[in-house]
Amino acid sequence: MNQHHSQQIHREFQSLLGTRYTIDKTIREAHAKDASYHQGALPEAVVFPDSNKEVSEIVKICAKYNKPIIPYGTGTGVEGAVVSSEGALCMSLNRMNRILSVNPSDRDATVQAGVTRLELNTHLAKLGTQLHFPVDPGADASLGGMVATRASGTSAVYYGTMSDNVLGLTVITADGNIISTGGRSRKSAAGYDLTRLFIGSEGTLGIITEITVKLARLPEAVAAAVCAFPTVDAAVNTVLKLMDAGISLARIELLDALQMDAVNKYSRLNYDVAPTLFFEFHGSPNAVAESSEIAASIASVNCNGDFRWTTDDTERKQLWQARYDSYYAALNLRPGSVGYVTDVCVPISQLALCINTTRALLDTSQLMATMLGHVGDGNFHVVFPLEPNNREELAEAQNISNQIVDIALEMGGTCTGEHGIGIGKRCALEKEHGAAVNLMRAIKNALDPQNLMNPGKVFL
Amino acid sequence: MNQHHSQQIHREFQSLLGTRYTIDKTIREAHAKDASYHQGALPEAVVFPDSNKEVSEIVKICAKYNKPIIPYGTGTGVEGAVVSSEGALCMSLNRMNRILSVNPSDRDATVQAGVTRLELNTHLAKLGTQLHFPVDPGADASLGGMVATRASGTSAVYYGTMSDNVLGLTVITADGNIISTGGRSRKSAAGYDLTRLFIGSEGTLGIITEITVKLARLPEAVAAAVCAFPTVDAAVNTVLKLMDAGISLARIELLDALQMDAVNKYSRLNYDVAPTLFFEFHGSPNAVAESSEIAASIASVNCNGDFRWTTDDTERKQLWQARYDSYYAALNLRPGSVGYVTDVCVPISQLALCINTTRALLDTSQLMATMLGHVGDGNFHVVFPLEPNNREELAEAQNISNQIVDIALEMGGTCTGEHGIGIGKRCALEKEHGAAVNLMRAIKNALDPQNLMNPGKVFL
Repeated sequence: MNQHHSQQIHREFQSLLGTRYTIDKTIREAHAKDASYHQGALPEAVVFPDSNKEVSEIVKICAKYNKPIIPYGTGTGVEGAVVSSEGALCMSLNRMNRILSVNPSDRDATVQAGVTRLELNTHLAKLGTQLHFPVDPGADASLGGMVATRASGTSAVYYGTMSDNVLGLTVITADGNIISTGGRSRKSAAGYDLTRLFIGSEGTLGIITEITVKLARLPEAVAAAVCAFPTVDAAVNTVLKLMDAGISLARIELLDALQMDAVNKYSRLNYDVAPTLFFEFHGSPNAVAESSEIAASIASVNCNGDFRWTTDDTERKQLWQARYDSYYAALNLRPGSVGYVTDVCVPISQLALCINTTRALLDTSQLMATMLGHVGDGNFHVVFPLEPNNREELAEAQNISNQIVDIALEMGGTCTGEHGIGIGKRCALEKEHGAAVNLMRAIKNALDPQNLMNPGKVFL
Repeated sequence: MNQHHSQQIHREFQSLLGTRYTIDKTIREAHAKDASYHQGALPEAVVFPDSNKEVSEIVKICAKYNKPIIPYGTGTGVEGAVVSSEGALCMSLNRMNRILSVNPSDRDATVQAGVTRLELNTHLAKLGTQLHFPVDPGADASLGGMVATRASGTSAVYYGTMSDNVLGLTVITADGNIISTGGRSRKSAAGYDLTRLFIGSEGTLGIITEITVKLARLPEAVAAAVCAFPTVDAAVNTVLKLMDAGISLARIELLDALQMDAVNKYSRLNYDVAPTLFFEFHGSPNAVAESSEIAASIASVNCNGDFRWTTDDTERKQLWQARYDSYYAALNLRPGSVGYVTDVCVPISQLALCINTTRALLDTSQLMATMLGHVGDGNFHVVFPLEPNNREELAEAQNISNQIVDIALEMGGTCTGEHGIGIGKRCALEKEHGAAVNLMRAIKNALDPQNLMNPGKVFL
């Protein structure tokens, strides 16, 4: 882009957005990357639109001047989906944080993309709806970001992923059109499922600005428990038995011994430093009692002693907060480190073998690594706290991660259960989907012929 | 296409498929249309491939000679998605009827597209898996057809639609490539969701040849009940109360008085000729007892007398068979008639108003019309048994249907809950999704640039 264009675009953004267009270096630095080791260049500028109309105008200006746009939510991703590049415009959706409607009888709500899941849940509680938005990736991510990465997390085993909990979207397309996908009916067979095409598209097909989500009833009763095991294998086998028995689990999380140590230190807790399962049961008081009793009896065969129950709401929240903080707790084991996280998901019958093979791989390495997972879905993570800019460590983590992906794919699994492709999994996507990636590319080209929507992400 | 090409293509198909390529008129006639009033021209030929390789070869021949392909399952659709056109090739998937794998621990199965849902369920029972494929549109449709139309039916309120129950697909693309989408893991964030793009694409983006489906556990306990009401309104209000109370219903179906009369006559039953709800409860014995008791107490406020329980398995199957036969029962009220079916779905809070407004519309017409619906989803149908080739009747049915669609869209609903667009809802799709249809068209053009995959369907 020549100097002249650069000045023109500067003027156009200023006139459209005033101070909500900025080239301030600190702000650009704060929008250059996500929560992981992935490095980003500084964006040329950051914009903070607050309406569909403004997003549309920004997209049109970018199309005119051939300027790439990187949509930005809370920056809590870990695959580099929001890392910036030279000359790109970062579009923060964080001013688009209005809850547009809540329909208790239909159990749905429509929000702007910048609303975070906790903001929505706080609002639902204030309204006294007895409803909640159940998808829970741990981080207080924006719903736009959660849509963009097809997020899931601890509660997906019971409530499903973003794919299951979104009814419709408003999207600004690459030519600046404002379109609506889906709707408010619970099902529809009206044409191609654009909603689910945009879910997981990581900003590469258009800017997601509004989301209609399904809401779930708050469970009448909740019980949570923690249970330590002598080995990871014993814990995973317990999970398989529970799943096989059809026990209704709202969450079932595995943390290995080092991750428990990290959690204890970071959140000042005193759990056993041993492979541990965190459980949660939702439902009617009878159903919760029934499920949790059966679960306890199955778990007791392999575990170190008893279930540690946490029926108290505060204690339960503390427990899950510790689980949510796991990533930062792992990084905290090595102060100043940056995180590299793997994310495979396999059919549940393959989970024990996949985790054991991964454990064996980790044992051949000097890298510090914790393991944790949403094991009811067959999804688990290895967190490597890496020294920043240490190429050898990064190469080793990448090498191990590639091998874990190969193992998972061999088992019919996927290279990413919930973190997305970003820039970190582009090779893995090719490995996993082969010729199907050409269809994805064809769709990308059709919907974004100038390649301005988060270019370089998802595809090599 | 000139004579020379015509002979060449004939020779190529014969050499590839032998007698599984046919120009027999009776067979072509049997593949010209679906189960509705929609008229089709005779396809030029019908092919019966039995492998991905053969489908791929057929697609490549068609691409070479610019010949449209119409994939055909069981022909049980009602929106004309499989109606043929002059010069088109009909591709029946009914020889691709092998069950390729069943994984009980992962609760999934992979089948060829021609396998019907009852064939799969019979197979699962024979294997003693205690699993079933729960999506149930009534007709014993092929799973390929159910994927293509994003089918749902009576059990969607509990088990979800095809969108919720498919993990992955094998698809033959418009250039003859064999690709896989999705996989066997329960969740994935790996790139665009091609699986859900093909679900509901009605054969316009490629030929679906294999499907990996989720399986559900057979419920430990099942209870079914029938309950008659003085008015449709009383029945619908009962549904709203049940949904609002969060009662776990596996099915909840509404049939109006005329539809009940039709069912009685067609299936030789003796139900009250009154608006009626059919219920089914699935779960543990305790959960079923709990849910059905609460449901009975809520329903009893408005209903004509008591729940009529059918705990006996044979009686229960008879009850649901009567419900499944509803469409043919309605046509049977007027022997020789052809069916025109509406299919709107609205947010549940709007259902009573939408049904009442529809009822008022029907009352202004002389056309015979029955009403029935999957009311737990907000989805209902009007069936018009029409005199074949009677243009006035067809125009009147279309006019009423258009008005029902307008009402539903006004309420935030959709023009089709489960039957798809085919040729019957193309205008409605434009009304419902406006500019978003341009994105669908762009995707169609990108994946099928020659427009040979079921051309003329979904889009005007």
